[in-house]
Amino acid sequence: MLTTISKPIQQDLARVEDRLRSVCEVDFPQLSELLDYSLRGGKRVRPALVLLSGKFYNYDLARLLPMAAAVEVLHTATLVHDDAIDNSLVRHGRPTINKVWGEDKAILLGDYLLAKSEELVADTQNLQVIKLFARAIMTIARGELSQAFDAFNLEQGRQQYLQRIASKTASLLSLATESGAMLSQAPEKAVKALKEYGYNLGIAFQIVDDVLDFSSTEEELGKPVGSDLAQGTLTLPAILLLESYPEDNPVARWFHSRDKEENVEAAIELIRSSSIIPECYKVASDYCARACRSLDLLPDNASRRSLMKLADYVVARKR
Amino acid sequence: MLTTISKPIQQDLARVEDRLRSVCEVDFPQLSELLDYSLRGGKRVRPALVLLSGKFYNYDLARLLPMAAAVEVLHTATLVHDDAIDNSLVRHGRPTINKVWGEDKAILLGDYLLAKSEELVADTQNLQVIKLFARAIMTIARGELSQAFDAFNLEQGRQQYLQRIASKTASLLSLATESGAMLSQAPEKAVKALKEYGYNLGIAFQIVDDVLDFSSTEEELGKPVGSDLAQGTLTLPAILLLESYPEDNPVARWFHSRDKEENVEAAIELIRSSSIIPECYKVASDYCARACRSLDLLPDNASRRSLMKLADYVVARKR
Repeated sequence: MLTTISKPIQQDLARVEDRLRSVCEVDFPQLSELLDYSLRGGKRVRPALVLLSGKFYNYDLARLLPMAAAVEVLHTATLVHDDAIDNSLVRHGRPTINKVWGEDKAILLGDYLLAKSEELVADTQNLQVIKLFARAIMTIARGELSQAFDAFNLEQGRQQYLQRIASKTASLLSLATESGAMLSQAPEKAVKALKEYGYNLGIAFQIVDDVLDFSSTEEELGKPVGSDLAQGTLTLPAILLLESYPEDNPVARWFHSRDKEENVEAAIELIRSSSIIPECYKVASDYCARACRSLDLLPDNASRRSLMKLADYVVARKR
Repeated sequence: MLTTISKPIQQDLARVEDRLRSVCEVDFPQLSELLDYSLRGGKRVRPALVLLSGKFYNYDLARLLPMAAAVEVLHTATLVHDDAIDNSLVRHGRPTINKVWGEDKAILLGDYLLAKSEELVADTQNLQVIKLFARAIMTIARGELSQAFDAFNLEQGRQQYLQRIASKTASLLSLATESGAMLSQAPEKAVKALKEYGYNLGIAFQIVDDVLDFSSTEEELGKPVGSDLAQGTLTLPAILLLESYPEDNPVARWFHSRDKEENVEAAIELIRSSSIIPECYKVASDYCARACRSLDLLPDNASRRSLMKLADYVVARKR
C-alpha cells in the first residue's frame, strides 16, 4: 500500500534515501555504524509527507529534499532517545541502540541526530521553517516529559492523553506537512490545511500505534505486547478500560503494586475481549476523516489522492 | 576577577540573564522548574565570549543577545546530558537533574534545551551562524561519543586527548567567539582570529578542568575528586602518569580491574605529589598564550583587554 501512496514522489524518495545514506558517511567508524544502524529500514512516512505536501504549488526539490531528510533524522533521534528512556530492548524486531551499544551511546547518538536534523533544515534557507523545526522539537520533548511525569498516574483522562499525543507525535507529522507546504510557496490557507491534515493524521497514527500495542502480536510489533502499560504509560485503550471498570480493574491494580506483572496480562486480555479496540479505531477513523476533509480546498492531483490513501493506511496498518 | 572581565558588557550580560529567565517561563510547571534549576547559577563565560567578541566592529545587540543566550542554553543541555550519562550525583555542589528527577527527565530536558538553543539562534536571522551552531553540536556529540567509546581504554595518548577536548569543549568556545565576530560584521581575518582565540582558550579551559579534577578539593569542585578517572576517562594528568610509569601504575591497575577503587586514590596521590600538575599547567598556559596572540590583529579596546584577562583567569581559577 505504501508503494502506491508514494508513487507521485517515488524517484525523489530515492533521493531522500541517498541523502540519509550520506548522513552516515562520517570519518568516525563507530559513529558511522551507529548512524547506519539507526537510520536503516524506516517506512519513511514523514519524508513522504513533506514531498507530497510540496506537490500542490511550486515543487522546489532543492529545499524539500533536505527538509524530508531532516524530519526522518529527527524522527530517528526521538526513537533512539525514547528507547534509552524506556530501556526498550527491541524495536522493529532488532535490538535497540541502548541494548547493543549502551545507554550512554544512545543519548549521544540522539544528540548528534538532533543536531544533524537542524543542519539539514538550515539547507532549506528558510528562517521561518528553521524556527518551526526547533519549536517542533521543543513540543515533542514537552510531550515526552509530560508522559514521563505522568508515569503510573491513574488520574489521566482522554483529554490529557490527546494533548500528550498531539505534542509527542502529531507535532512532527504536522511539521512535515506544514513545512512541505511552506517550502513550495503554498498560499496561507493551503499551508493551514496541510498542517491540519498532518496534525489529525498524527493523532490517528498514535492512537492506532497505542491500540496495536495491545491488539497485535509480538511478531508483528517487533517488540513485546503491552509495553506501554508495562512502563506505566496510560494510552487510550487503558483509559477506556478504566472508564468501563472504575471500581476494580487490572490497570489500577498494576499501577498500585508494580511487582504483579500478571495484571498487565489481565489488562491485555480484558481489552482484547471487550469492545475497546473497535471503539479506539472509531476515534482514530474520526481523526482520519477530519484529516481528509482539510484536503478539500487543495487542488485535486495525484498527491492529494495519495494523502487520502495514507489516511486509510494509518488505520489499516498492522505495524 | 570575572566581574572585571565582563565590565565592558556588564549591562548586556544582565539582559542575557533576562533572556535566560524568560526561557524558564513555560506553561508547564514541572518543566519550568527543571529549566530554572538547570539554568541557574552558571558563570556565563560563553555568553560573555559572544558579547566581547562582538565589540570590535558593529556591535549588534539584537543579534548578539539571542546568540549569547543560545550558547548558554546549549552548554546547559550538554551538562544535563553529561551528568545523566556519567550518572553524576552532584554538580557545583548541587544534586544533578538525573539525581533529583531521574535519568529519563534529564534526557528529555536536555533535548528540550538543545531545541531551545536552536530556536534562539534562529533569532539571529543569520543562516551561516545557524549552520555553524548545528555543526558545533554535532562536533560536541562526536567528542563525547569518542570519550564514551574510549572509556577504560589505556591506548590513548596526548594527541587523542587533545582531539577529544577540541571536539567536546573548544568547539563551543570557538562557536561563541566566531559567531560573536560574524554577527558584528567583522572582516574575515578578525572572524578567524576570534575563532582561534576561542579554540585555544577552550583547550586550555578543559586541560585546567581536568587538572582540577585531581588537584582540587571536593568542596571547591562541588563534586568528588578524581571522577574522570573513576569513570574510565583518561585526561592529561593520567596520560602523563602513564607516560612516566609505563611499567606499573595505579591508572593501568584501575582500568584492568575496576573493582579496586583504591587505585583511583593511589593515582590521585601520585599525580599530586609528582611534577605532573605543573606540567599540565604549562601546556594550558601555552594554549592561553596562543589564544592571546590571535588577538594581536584586533583593534585595541576594553574588550580585547577583557579577553586577555579571561585567558589568565582560565589558568588561575580554582573551579
